[in-house]
Amino acid sequence: MKSNETGQDQNIEPEKTYSRRTILKSAGIGSLGVIIGASGLGGVISARESASNSAKANKNTIPFYGKHQAGIATTKPALLYFASFDVKTESRAELIEMLKDWTKAAAAMASGEMIGGTQNSVYLPPEDTGEAAALDTANLTLTFGVGPTLFKKNGKNRFGIAHKLPQELKKLPAFSLDALDKDWCDGDLCVQVCSDDAQVNFHAIRNLVRIARGKAILKWSQEGFQGKNNPHTKNETPRNLFGFKDETVNLSPEKKMDFDKHVWVQSGDGPNWLTGGSYLVVRRIQMHIEVWDRTALGEQEKTFGRHRITGAPLGKEKEFSDLGLDRKDEAGNFVIPVNAHARQAHGKGDQPLYRRSFSYSSGMAANTGTLDAGLFFMCFQRFPSKQFIPVQKRLGQSDKLNEYITHRGSAIFACLPGIRKGGWIGETLFS
Amino acid sequence: MKSNETGQDQNIEPEKTYSRRTILKSAGIGSLGVIIGASGLGGVISARESASNSAKANKNTIPFYGKHQAGIATTKPALLYFASFDVKTESRAELIEMLKDWTKAAAAMASGEMIGGTQNSVYLPPEDTGEAAALDTANLTLTFGVGPTLFKKNGKNRFGIAHKLPQELKKLPAFSLDALDKDWCDGDLCVQVCSDDAQVNFHAIRNLVRIARGKAILKWSQEGFQGKNNPHTKNETPRNLFGFKDETVNLSPEKKMDFDKHVWVQSGDGPNWLTGGSYLVVRRIQMHIEVWDRTALGEQEKTFGRHRITGAPLGKEKEFSDLGLDRKDEAGNFVIPVNAHARQAHGKGDQPLYRRSFSYSSGMAANTGTLDAGLFFMCFQRFPSKQFIPVQKRLGQSDKLNEYITHRGSAIFACLPGIRKGGWIGETLFS
Repeated sequence: MKSNETGQDQNIEPEKTYSRRTILKSAGIGSLGVIIGASGLGGVISARESASNSAKANKNTIPFYGKHQAGIATTKPALLYFASFDVKTESRAELIEMLKDWTKAAAAMASGEMIGGTQNSVYLPPEDTGEAAALDTANLTLTFGVGPTLFKKNGKNRFGIAHKLPQELKKLPAFSLDALDKDWCDGDLCVQVCSDDAQVNFHAIRNLVRIARGKAILKWSQEGFQGKNNPHTKNETPRNLFGFKDETVNLSPEKKMDFDKHVWVQSGDGPNWLTGGSYLVVRRIQMHIEVWDRTALGEQEKTFGRHRITGAPLGKEKEFSDLGLDRKDEAGNFVIPVNAHARQAHGKGDQPLYRRSFSYSSGMAANTGTLDAGLFFMCFQRFPSKQFIPVQKRLGQSDKLNEYITHRGSAIFACLPGIRKGGWIGETLFS
Repeated sequence: MKSNETGQDQNIEPEKTYSRRTILKSAGIGSLGVIIGASGLGGVISARESASNSAKANKNTIPFYGKHQAGIATTKPALLYFASFDVKTESRAELIEMLKDWTKAAAAMASGEMIGGTQNSVYLPPEDTGEAAALDTANLTLTFGVGPTLFKKNGKNRFGIAHKLPQELKKLPAFSLDALDKDWCDGDLCVQVCSDDAQVNFHAIRNLVRIARGKAILKWSQEGFQGKNNPHTKNETPRNLFGFKDETVNLSPEKKMDFDKHVWVQSGDGPNWLTGGSYLVVRRIQMHIEVWDRTALGEQEKTFGRHRITGAPLGKEKEFSDLGLDRKDEAGNFVIPVNAHARQAHGKGDQPLYRRSFSYSSGMAANTGTLDAGLFFMCFQRFPSKQFIPVQKRLGQSDKLNEYITHRGSAIFACLPGIRKGGWIGETLFS
């Protein structure tokens, strides 16, 4: 088994053993044993690494298993990679097998381990594509959802689950001013990957795509981001690409009662398989950056109904002050205009959403030389019919912000309940 | 000047004062004075913020001014936003004006300040688009370069600088297997924006595009990333999307003599305006992820000529060991195959490059359902004709990695020397 630099050793050693944790250790101490061997493949060369595993688990790790899926009530990190999949197999067994494989991979990635454990043969493709080796886990979460078309498509009960389709899980209605592109809409399955590292996100999506091969394909995907506050302002509300604070008014995961009332699906709401899950609405909202950037600050502030820098309602000092929608100026006009975004989004204040959006930037819009950028809006809720849908109906008709934005993509998914240890993604739906 | 929540104040107060630093302070103490006024624009509402500025400068700040531009020898952060511009104005004076405006904006952004100082009228678009307010400076650098077409295009001496075109600054030759798409090639000007925050990067490019309006337009752009090592492995070489370490063999900015010899243009190399600058070659290299992911680990390792996990040359233990290119196995074959990437890139070891690349991921390749991802290769050098060009000639012909990659984009720029305080981008070229 001894190795050397001459390449003369006759041993054949087709196995490698490593894990992301092992690598942490190895990188520090260079303790690898290395084998060079002649093999049936003609000089395939491999290395065995120390199987010892003493590095401590990374602290930027969010548990994968639990009552609810991670990535909803957990803190929103800097970067998003969202993917929508179409299932291609017609076999229920194959679909379940894929979901079980996804579960294993997702659990490994979320804990900073290599997918597939510590064994890799040089004769096979590696089970983990490797680009996240030794990277920080970076608060990675993977959140899985199912779309209405997984249950029934073109009238067909695809996987024997049509009877389990919740009433709330249906394609969103058309809203005023929608300009949807089917390339950014819908999907049988979705996964929301979030972390603080773009390479960790890419690695997660890439490996899910790889595992799905032959069973499901990427339908569309979108990366997103939010700015990171500096240490002086770490609790400041993130800003959207119009420079205004976004998600000032939002449900807080710290208020568990609010989440139970407005975000998590409760027992008795519908089919029991979704209890502990949540409905996710995504909207890819293009922002017409160049038009906005030519608009006067006063006009911008009237459009949102808030001051740009402070985020306070117009005429107020503090971001979290009550909107004061009844206030009028000396000319008798509402201080917060009738069509201001803040007023229209608020409505009567009885349709609370849990928003967890990211900005996006996708290079240039084709042939215009303008930036294709905007908001990848995501919200979680217990009842789309009472929360997102009525809010968006109002906004589509009356929001002054519509002069500067266009909804290009739309989808709804039921995000599954949390996965128990030993369980798998979709277990409650398919069992 | 007093404000209240009733909107009755008659004062007109069209000015706002703030800076990113002021905001840091204001956010903490909520000390803003607020004015509501009726104005000629009809109820425009504005706020005056405290002009006091006591927050400390952010420590994640890289100086904008200096002998060399930042973003070359400075540490590579997590995220890239690269943009190529075409100049549309035919006026030398307008081009210079734009470069001066870019300088002011870039210097402000690199130091974490709002562009345009602390004054904003509600009657005008804000000078800074605002989405980076209160964000960490995140090691932002902006690096500017000029392409050959800025000097002469279609035979025309566009801005009276044709006689200043360096011999080394010419369109790269065609290489074997190039499959270039003109939408990812060339440009009159470039800017490389790097930081650890995607929103800070976006803000920088977006404001440069805004300032250029009417004078220059985006030709193409590309975002990129590298993984962030965890605390246990913080000095580990970054991995590319094939899971292998990349930039193991590289020039180090810490070795100033190497940089003077191989990276920085020296006095006497060509026209003096470029002394202290560097030639940048960019190549958008698509990686055929799906093909790679079906390839056996042994084959992958023979393709690179290195072990995947350790990065060591085949048959060796340590990443930074000499390649040992003469070693043969018992069958008489080279341990590092003749066409292995490491061997071909190394050549005779006399064409050192300073590589500073990022991975990229741009959603899906059109209509294939595969990922459009790869390496946004960037290298800096003193003599493209003696460094990148001969290396790529060899790689294009003989690199086994060509089975898994395709070069889709290509450009060359002369990155300007550093900017002196009070100076401007392009000053040495246009003076």
